[in-house]
Amino acid sequence: MLTQYPSRLLERAVGEMSKLPGVGRKTALRLVLHLLRKERSEVMALTEALATLRNEVHYCKCCHNISDTELCDICSSPRRDHSLICVVENVQNVMAVEATGQYQGLYHVLGGVISPIDGIGPSDLEIESLVERVGAGGVEEVIFALNPTMEGDTTNFYISRRLRDYGIKLSTLARGVSVGDDLEYTDEVTLGRSLINRVPI
Amino acid sequence: MLTQYPSRLLERAVGEMSKLPGVGRKTALRLVLHLLRKERSEVMALTEALATLRNEVHYCKCCHNISDTELCDICSSPRRDHSLICVVENVQNVMAVEATGQYQGLYHVLGGVISPIDGIGPSDLEIESLVERVGAGGVEEVIFALNPTMEGDTTNFYISRRLRDYGIKLSTLARGVSVGDDLEYTDEVTLGRSLINRVPI
Repeated sequence: MLTQYPSRLLERAVGEMSKLPGVGRKTALRLVLHLLRKERSEVMALTEALATLRNEVHYCKCCHNISDTELCDICSSPRRDHSLICVVENVQNVMAVEATGQYQGLYHVLGGVISPIDGIGPSDLEIESLVERVGAGGVEEVIFALNPTMEGDTTNFYISRRLRDYGIKLSTLARGVSVGDDLEYTDEVTLGRSLINRVPI
Repeated sequence: MLTQYPSRLLERAVGEMSKLPGVGRKTALRLVLHLLRKERSEVMALTEALATLRNEVHYCKCCHNISDTELCDICSSPRRDHSLICVVENVQNVMAVEATGQYQGLYHVLGGVISPIDGIGPSDLEIESLVERVGAGGVEEVIFALNPTMEGDTTNFYISRRLRDYGIKLSTLARGVSVGDDLEYTDEVTLGRSLINRVPI
């Protein structure tokens, strides 16, 4: 229905905005018209923040997380346990683990998981650099914190085989009933695993 | 939960993005990380489109719709009926009426509706300029195409009182059962009105 834009500038802005994931042309129009009602300085704050991030972003040379510096705050902190590496898929997952306040080691951001259906193989991910980190010594345990999906499990399996010969501890997140969940609605695979891996009280 | 961003640049971009309506911090992070994975040129295309629109946008001096020129394409078209003015709330509504292909007159964009609860009075809207347009002569009919809400009706009423003495035809969109609707689920006010305003076959 929304085909005739009264202005080419408006049409171009809506077109670019609607390339964002989950943003259709109607939503894009709503967002763009919202920005038009705002002060010029507010719009510039948004566009400059996005452009600066894209132009100046660094990825930590050690863990490959987003960082303002060559070596990120976590990797360069003397208060973190450098013998522990937690393997995660992306930045959001680093933030999720950090938010628990339960982890004091380092991270390794793979940048995805192995997914043949999407054409993502081991060489597309930061796996080689993880093997190098472990090979350099000083690492005692690698914790896999990938999403509990087929792709996550495949990636776990592939990396653990690569790290098998280094004689370090390999572990993965416990799987079981979520805190606050109702057993009646827990899927049978999860409930089955949490029975097998039951914990003494 | 998402409180510790690994980068200040990232945090700033997420902060600006989450000021958009309907975009929370999690969505903002997802959008910003999506942009980080894109080519630099694609991100620049978005930021430049937004900045250019904000800096160079015009509003038509006659109908106040968004336009690339001083007088918009509709107001300057000799093929449109200049004796007919359709009063709408905003740009989206111009596009909605245009999409019907049923209207060949001009528009007048109020920029909102009278809403005392939001502190929007007649002087905040383009009402004076509408009265001037009508006063300048040549207009035969003003069609009110405001949303069928309390605020829309109040605005209709206020403007029609202002235009009463010019001796022109005033009309409003027909209200009735939507095409494709089920009578069982039509609200009683709408159904009642569509009975009173029934149309001969």
